[in-house]
Parts: sequence; C-alpha cells; structure tokens
Amino acid sequence: MHLRTAVAAAGVALLQSAAAASVEAKNVIYIVPDGYGPASQNMARDLASLIETGTTGSNPEIHELPVDDLAIGRVRTHSASSMITDSAASGTAFAAGHKSYNGAISVRPDGQPVGSILEAAKMGGLKTGLVSTTSISDATPAVYAAHVANRGSMPLIAEQQLGYSHPLGSMVDLLLGGGRCNFSPNTTEGSCRSDDLDLLAYAEHQGFTVAVDRNEFNSLSKAKLPLLGLFSEESMRYEMDRRVLQDEPSLLEMAQTAIKTLHQATRRSKKGYFLMIEAARIDHAGHANDPANHAIETWMYNDVIAWVRDWIDQHPDTIMLSAADHETGGLTLNGYDPLPLRNGTHSSEHLQSVWDSQPEGFDERAFLVSEILPAYGLDDASDDEIESVLEASSVGAGIASALSARAGVDWSTGGHTSVDVTLHGYAAGRKRRALQADLAGGWDNTELPRYIEDVLGLDMDAVTEKLRRAARKDSSWLGKREIEARGFGGCDHYH
Amino acid sequence: MHLRTAVAAAGVALLQSAAAASVEAKNVIYIVPDGYGPASQNMARDLASLIETGTTGSNPEIHELPVDDLAIGRVRTHSASSMITDSAASGTAFAAGHKSYNGAISVRPDGQPVGSILEAAKMGGLKTGLVSTTSISDATPAVYAAHVANRGSMPLIAEQQLGYSHPLGSMVDLLLGGGRCNFSPNTTEGSCRSDDLDLLAYAEHQGFTVAVDRNEFNSLSKAKLPLLGLFSEESMRYEMDRRVLQDEPSLLEMAQTAIKTLHQATRRSKKGYFLMIEAARIDHAGHANDPANHAIETWMYNDVIAWVRDWIDQHPDTIMLSAADHETGGLTLNGYDPLPLRNGTHSSEHLQSVWDSQPEGFDERAFLVSEILPAYGLDDASDDEIESVLEASSVGAGIASALSARAGVDWSTGGHTSVDVTLHGYAAGRKRRALQADLAGGWDNTELPRYIEDVLGLDMDAVTEKLRRAARKDSSWLGKREIEARGFGGCDHYH
Repeated sequence: MHLRTAVAAAGVALLQSAAAASVEAKNVIYIVPDGYGPASQNMARDLASLIETGTTGSNPEIHELPVDDLAIGRVRTHSASSMITDSAASGTAFAAGHKSYNGAISVRPDGQPVGSILEAAKMGGLKTGLVSTTSISDATPAVYAAHVANRGSMPLIAEQQLGYSHPLGSMVDLLLGGGRCNFSPNTTEGSCRSDDLDLLAYAEHQGFTVAVDRNEFNSLSKAKLPLLGLFSEESMRYEMDRRVLQDEPSLLEMAQTAIKTLHQATRRSKKGYFLMIEAARIDHAGHANDPANHAIETWMYNDVIAWVRDWIDQHPDTIMLSAADHETGGLTLNGYDPLPLRNGTHSSEHLQSVWDSQPEGFDERAFLVSEILPAYGLDDASDDEIESVLEASSVGAGIASALSARAGVDWSTGGHTSVDVTLHGYAAGRKRRALQADLAGGWDNTELPRYIEDVLGLDMDAVTEKLRRAARKDSSWLGKREIEARGFGGCDHYH
Repeated sequence: MHLRTAVAAAGVALLQSAAAASVEAKNVIYIVPDGYGPASQNMARDLASLIETGTTGSNPEIHELPVDDLAIGRVRTHSASSMITDSAASGTAFAAGHKSYNGAISVRPDGQPVGSILEAAKMGGLKTGLVSTTSISDATPAVYAAHVANRGSMPLIAEQQLGYSHPLGSMVDLLLGGGRCNFSPNTTEGSCRSDDLDLLAYAEHQGFTVAVDRNEFNSLSKAKLPLLGLFSEESMRYEMDRRVLQDEPSLLEMAQTAIKTLHQATRRSKKGYFLMIEAARIDHAGHANDPANHAIETWMYNDVIAWVRDWIDQHPDTIMLSAADHETGGLTLNGYDPLPLRNGTHSSEHLQSVWDSQPEGFDERAFLVSEILPAYGLDDASDDEIESVLEASSVGAGIASALSARAGVDWSTGGHTSVDVTLHGYAAGRKRRALQADLAGGWDNTELPRYIEDVLGLDMDAVTEKLRRAARKDSSWLGKREIEARGFGGCDHYH
C-alpha cells in the first residue's frame, strides 16, 4: 500500500508492496468473520443497543460493540477469477498472499501450491491452531494447511490437515470445529468419505487427543497439544440454536480453549503460536438471508473479539488481526428497527429441518402457526405474512423474508458481494498505536499475511519452495484430476 | 471512543468522550462525500480499474483510487430521531458535535442553537470557507454557519450564512457552490425567496467579490476574501453532465480556488483556515439509483482527495479529514461488472429533463431509442429493456434501473440507510501516523468536530454560549414557528 507507482493520468495507483511492520509479537491470533460485511456490525450493534436500552429505531440510543473500537482500515477482496470472491480464493489470499480462482485451496491459478502463514509458523518452530464453527476442512480453515485444486475435496483436505498426505508432515497442532464426516471412514454412518480411511484413528495414533462431543470438549481444558476436536459431522450449530440445545461448545468456548492450550504449550519458549479462528456461520446466515441469526452470529464474533482483546491486555506479546473474507447477502439497512429480531429462538435452517421432519400430510398451516412462527419470533404473524410463508420456495426462506421485512432490512442476493470489508486489529499498550498506523488505509487481501510474516519473522516463500519441490516429485496430493475439471464460474453455490 | 464505561453484561460499551488529538495543525480541510457508502468506493474503483486495464469483472485487475489509502476508521451516523439520519442531523453532528433530529440545522432537539467548528474557527481568528456542488444553503453546508429549526428554510439559512441575520455577524469568508435562488429577491426570475431581499447586493455591499457564472469563476483566482460564488440557481450539474456542457466549474476547480485563496489570505498569519468541501451529488445520484452517475461523482471525490493530499504534502501545516454523512441508495454489488457504466454521457436526471421538454404527442419509443438510450450508454438496448423503460414510473427511473441490472448492482431504497461510513484522513510526514493512531476505531459522528477543535485549539462551547445569549434576547432568527411545526418522521424526502 505504501510503496506504489502512480498511474497519474487516471488517478489510479498501482500496488507495489505491503507495509513493513513496526510491531513485533510472539503470537498472532487471526480472526475471520466469514461473510461479515459493513452492515453486519450495524445490525448486531443496533440490536444489542436497543435491547440494552429499551429504545426503538425512532429514538435510538446506540452503544459500541467490542469490534467497533478496533477498526483500522479496509480490505479489497476480489479474486483472480471474479470481482466477487468465494471463501477459498479469499482464504488463499489471506493465508498465503496470492490471488487465485474461486474454489482454490492455497494453489495458484496454474495449480501450483503456495505456502501459508500457518505453515511458515510451523516451519519456524511456532505452534499452530485452527478453530471454526463450520467443517474444519471447509475453505477458510483449509487454506492454512492444505493445497488442493478444488475446495470440494474436503476428505483430501482433511488428510493434509492431519499431515497424513501433506508433503511437509503435520502442520497444525490444534484443530477445533465441525466436519467430522471428512475424517471418519465410509463404514461409519454420516461419513463423507468414499474410502475407509479412518483419520480419527490416525490422529490418535499420531498422538492427538481427540474429542468428538460436548463432554469430551469439556475435558480438553486439561489436554496437551496436539488436539483434534470435531463436534459435528458437518457445520456446527448456529449460535442461536446452540444456546437452546447446549450440545456443542460455542465459538467463544473453543477460542478460549485454543488460546489457553497454545499459550500453555509455548509460554516457556521464545517461539509462540499462530492461531486462526473463524466465525464461519455469519456467512451461512447471510446466504440464508436470516436476519436475527446473522445478527447473533455477528454478536458472537464481537464476544470473541472482546475476550481476545482482554487476553492480549494480559499477554501483550500477542496481537490480533481480523477481517472478513467477503460480504454475504448484500445486506442493507434501509429502514432498520431491530426489535422484531429479538424474539426468535431458532434459525430458519433449524426450523426448516423441523418442518421437513413432519410426517406426510400434516396440517401445514396449523403447524406453521403453532410451532414454526413462534420459534422464529413471529407469533403475531398476520394472515398476509402466513400466506407469504406458505407460498415461499421453502418455509425457511419464507419466514426469513417475513422477518427481514418487519425489521426493515434488505438482502440483494443469496450469494456474496464485492464490497470492501473492514480490517480490525488490536495490540496492547503502545504497540497498539504502531499497529494502527501500520495498517491504516486500504489493503488488498493478499497483503495481510505478508504483514503477519513480518511481525512474526517468518518466511512463506521458503514453504512455497518446499511444497513445489514435493509437487515436482509427486503431485497426486494436489488433487490433479480436479485441476483439469475445475470451472471459473460464479460463486453462488459456494460459501 | 477511548474513555468509556464497560457495560460488561451485554458486552456493550458506553461512549464517554472523543480521543485527544496528538496532532496540531494550522489549517483543517474537512471533505464530506454526501451519501457515499462503503460500496460507492468499490463501484468507482472497479470502474476506473477496468477502464484503465481493459479487463472485465470475470478477470479483474483492480488498482487503488486515492481515497483507498486514507481509510482510518468507521463512523456511526444515527440521529436523535431515527436510526437513519438525514444530512441535516448528521451535519449538525459533524459540524457542532451534537445529536439532533432529522431536519435540524445546528440546533438541538430543544430548538436551542449549538456552535459549529467553523464558527469557532472564525471566532478564533481563522479564515473560513464552504464549498458544495449543491445549494450552498442546503443542509450539509448550512450547519456550519446557520441555526434554524428546519432545513427547508434555505432563504433564512442564506441570510445567516452572509451574516445578515447571524447574531455573531459574518462567519464565512468564502462560499462557492449552487443555490443562487436563495440569495436573489423574488423580483428575479428563478428566485426561491418570498421577499425582495437581495442578498447578492448585500454581499457586494459588505465587500464580497460575487461571481455567478463560469467566466466570473475563472477570474476569482485573482480575487481576495471575502468571496461568494453561486453558479446555479439550485444544485450544480452532475459531473458527467458538466463535463459535456462545460458551463460550470467542477468541484475540483472550486476546491482548488478555495484552498489557494484561503492559503493566500492566511499564509503570513499564525492563524490558518477551516474549509468544508462537500461532494454533494454522490447523494443525489444515489437517491436516483443512477449507477454511472454515482460512480463518477465518487470518482470526482477521489480526484479532490488526491489534489488535497498533494497540497498537504506541500503545505504540511494542513490536515484533511473526510467522512460521509450517511449512505444513500442501499447500494450492493451483487454481480458487479462496471463495463456497462462507461458508455453514458449524461445523468438520468438530465435525460429526464430532455424527455420532459419534448413537445406533446412526440413519438416516445423513437425518441427513447434515438436520443435517450444512446446518451445513457444503452444504444444496444434489447426490446425487453426498451419496454421496461417505457413502463417505468419515469424514463429517468427506467433507464437507471436497466443500467443497474446490466452492471450487476442493486439499490434497496431511494432514501438513506444506516450503515457506518468510512473515516478518511491525511497529514504529511510523521504527523500522518499520529493522525492514523488517533482516529483508528469506531466513532460517533458527534466526536469528529471535537477532534478538529483539539487540533486547531478552538472552543465550540464558547460559541454556543454566545448564540444562546443572543437567542434569549431575540430568537426570531432561529425560525421559531418552524420549530413548533417540525416533524420527527422518516427522511426519504430528505437528502
């Protein structure tokens, strides 16, 4: 950003290189609020403020949420194949510093692997971790320790994430999230694998402590690295459903366990850790145009940021950076009053699954009115609203649309948009002003890992060189056939 | 932002006070891109980049625009009466540091006047200026040197802006923009006044150099303060129309004249100047959902920022801050490819006026196809597009909608939205990092003038006290009757 060649005629500046870091740190925590756009923060903040103060949108009293205070700059997110990125291309940029096509997992458009900041950390002697509320092998966490042509190859990604087929071995010391189905053999119910490879058994054999449910999660607080915790077959629950059902850990709980465990493992060493935490389902709620859900996932992201900020105040050798990979849903607040969002107890996805599990021939209207609408905060739905839900493409879409209309918010897409996202950061004491000055301005998403590389004193290009040497000998781990088959189309079907 | 009381339970922080400035400056230039939201910058940047590089949205090569590099933080914009502010309430916040109701011109909800940063600058011995591409008495410039209950009272505002009825006398040394109709007597064609007060004659009598057209603007470069330049009856032309018609100065030209004149008047003094520049019609193009127009107005804002940045590099005793008052149009880029935007030569508003001036009974379809669509960059319009335009509520709305669809952008409203806006700033040399660190984070719009007050060493509260003393003696200048009649409704009819 700071070194550039002016293309004076058009007033356009050509990007030359990232900022040099004037900050050093032992540990970096990088938080990705997937699908979190500029309006997402307003949506959560206004909801929190109006619940807190008892005011309405026509007489608002607005308070800050924790993330507000940490804004530093803006990040551009386009991919090599589209103005609108998916999480894979944006993740490849954030993790490895290279533009690639939508669907790419830390490979460039020519299919060659590029080393990530997490791999560089591991090779540099630091401990590493990945936390996500979706499948740990889905795009955003995948790009840090896997290299495949197509994000859909999650079983292949899982193998690399555990070092089973990663040419440099095990890169990740801690993995917490969902997506167990990619690790369990096809002989197991719910498996997403086509083979009988049992990666859970492999992990235990390699010395991982493995946890697969809420109870086992609770006992992880005493465990040592390496750790593998997979608490659902695919995505974990939305926070609003989880609060009620209480059968999975929250993102905040996983983040706390990850940070404390990584801290414990490195506190007597000069080498620290790199940890990526993904608030994955802000994106999913955006795809579903599900307003209260989107706001509550965003609120949880704020809660995680608040806890990490307080942690850094106590551990000033750590810094935090955070930026979304892209916006999801095309959310605008064209008449927003958040109060209708406060009454629901479940996501539209959960209520759709309840609906889908009803016996054939059930009384749709009666069940909608007695069960679905109250659980979504629409117990006083008008006849027009009820009809609109029954006529929608699905009940889930219908209730989401009815609630969005009540709350005065608009979604322009079920996919992503190309608006810039906000860059947030935190460091303790005097380092904070240095971080703010280093990172003010507009950034391309590829520049951020270069900054972290500088902060931690790492070398991503050396990792890339090692990966390419391995690929020259044998490139089967890159999922070669899928490179040939990959498309460069839109991303509406991606997350 | 930096001092606050945590409301720990909800994770909500209560705002206590603004940041102290670690920067000092002789001059402050404050630039308001009215109605410029987060997506506006993407829209202009991508258009500029794709024209420059000849690539498309499916293979994008994106370059920075000048504003990109200057992002520092985010600004919350809600007013005292609504989550969605208008320019008057937001202007009152930016200019005077107080929340008020939509429609308020530097008065609080109780109707009492509050002193602005410009008035504080004038009382402190600095020179002052206002530049805008809309009526200089419209809300955004009005709040700096007028105090009335209702933004619609533009004739009253004009009187105060020249000191004719301002209790503290003439506060503004330089005014450049549109809105001549509020200054000319009702005996003049085009006047917006109900009385025969001739404020142009009054200004000349008070020693102002007065310019009312493009030629007179050109000669202003040799003029001394005070200056009054009013180049259109109401709003000035959109930049895309102005480029073709060349009968008015551009925003950049007005900004250059204003800065050079204020600099000339203060260069030998210890006291500098405060100047507000409004890129007013980003907002109007947003209200019209007119995509190329919105992008080109935003591009012109970037050109002004680039020139001011270079000026500051040569005059490091000056700093620049810039933030929009609110977003307009609910713009999202849900499939944006800007190339369809590059062919039009006129705004939808201008083409609507051409349409409206046709003789009765003209061949609508033929005129649309031969004149309107080509001028809007839609010379290859399909039959479906032509039908959609003819069936729209107006031709202007129809062509704007057709072009938005082609370019893959969505507008959710003809009004404003409540998304946060980006705070930009620039200072030369080492001061820049201090400014960035001072202003990183999230701000309420009321905090920004307090920062400028600190930078320039001014006292807004002292001005408020003087204004209130005057109002206690005689409050007729505040437009009292309108206080009683004011409403607290929505702002869709506002700008």
